[in-house]
Amino acid sequence: MKRKVVVLVSGGLDSVCALYDAAANYEVIAGVSFEYGAKHNRQELPFASQHCQRLNLQHEIIRLDFIGQYFRSALLETGAAIPDTHFEAPPMKQTVVPFRNGIFLAAAAGFAESIGATAVVIAAHAGDHAIFPDCRPEFMDAMSRAIQFGTDTRLEILRPFIKLTKAQIVKRGHSLNVPLEDTWTCYKGGEKHCGTCGACVERKEAFASALVPDPTAYMS
Amino acid sequence: MKRKVVVLVSGGLDSVCALYDAAANYEVIAGVSFEYGAKHNRQELPFASQHCQRLNLQHEIIRLDFIGQYFRSALLETGAAIPDTHFEAPPMKQTVVPFRNGIFLAAAAGFAESIGATAVVIAAHAGDHAIFPDCRPEFMDAMSRAIQFGTDTRLEILRPFIKLTKAQIVKRGHSLNVPLEDTWTCYKGGEKHCGTCGACVERKEAFASALVPDPTAYMS
Repeated sequence: MKRKVVVLVSGGLDSVCALYDAAANYEVIAGVSFEYGAKHNRQELPFASQHCQRLNLQHEIIRLDFIGQYFRSALLETGAAIPDTHFEAPPMKQTVVPFRNGIFLAAAAGFAESIGATAVVIAAHAGDHAIFPDCRPEFMDAMSRAIQFGTDTRLEILRPFIKLTKAQIVKRGHSLNVPLEDTWTCYKGGEKHCGTCGACVERKEAFASALVPDPTAYMS
Repeated sequence: MKRKVVVLVSGGLDSVCALYDAAANYEVIAGVSFEYGAKHNRQELPFASQHCQRLNLQHEIIRLDFIGQYFRSALLETGAAIPDTHFEAPPMKQTVVPFRNGIFLAAAAGFAESIGATAVVIAAHAGDHAIFPDCRPEFMDAMSRAIQFGTDTRLEILRPFIKLTKAQIVKRGHSLNVPLEDTWTCYKGGEKHCGTCGACVERKEAFASALVPDPTAYMS
């Protein structure tokens, strides 16, 4: 019998591929997204909905308005401009949303247990950046234990992409026939991908390195 | 220099005492409460506000509407009736809100880091019940590590009451001149404390055992 899982799906490249991968390997009870006042939420979330609909999955968007209201980050509508730089460069630090993955995983864990899932899938991968403390392996390991110990069903966090680079995720998505043009990466949240923010630069590099044609319409 | 902390304050007996205790020992940057659709939120939260105001502290109520919306628990407005029984009795299991403390701590951690605190105070105590997985020491330990590793400032969870029983918390509050009548314990959320739910029974026992006069107006 397949495991019943909830998938964290933002509408970004990694999590959309993780959704299709999970649909192939598990019984996906629901996809869950968060509306937290990020600049790119309005571009991302419709893609999350679209893919869940395509896969005939329940999709819930959980509002976390307090993040936009109280937190300080260039990633948020309430924050400063997104820096144009590579992801590993120091200015990207301004895009950190304090403990974002901790909050997402905690909310998803409670939701998953409530609807009868026994695991939560997150698209954490080998290329996750050390500038985000809540992407580091020691955080993920401790948070996984906290969720196991803190739930009746000893809910698990599954990270099927943890050994893959972003380029390998592009390849995986391509092989699963994921319509990769219907995913959102840009941090700026304009009408098109800007092509110059750290997130866009990394997206371009991933397609190039995967030797998969990049279907994204960039502004530059 | 005193540590800058955020205090989780629900308006209940334990957390209100923790607020006064923290005000005596730390620099409290803010008290934080959660509105999550619990039956007793409307009785509890005004007390949380009142005590923060009395201590001249910033107080924020963070809305977590998704809990009331999606989660199943007798504690919630959307759930079944609260059982009349002792806390340790099996029916109290119905009052579990999946991963509630995990969600509260995660949200409080992000909030605390955003407003410049370096620790979050929670009124976890020695009498916390094993029927709630997210009150067990192994959960708290793992969650504390997750928050340390997942934040830039290596934010800490402080549990000043962890070795105290509820009766000892009553004594501590009494010695700090906390107006204990202005705290809410009852799970039913009526006009007065019901006096018969597991939470009320435990409150009565704590005052009796502490030899502190119980100022609570119970219905029975």
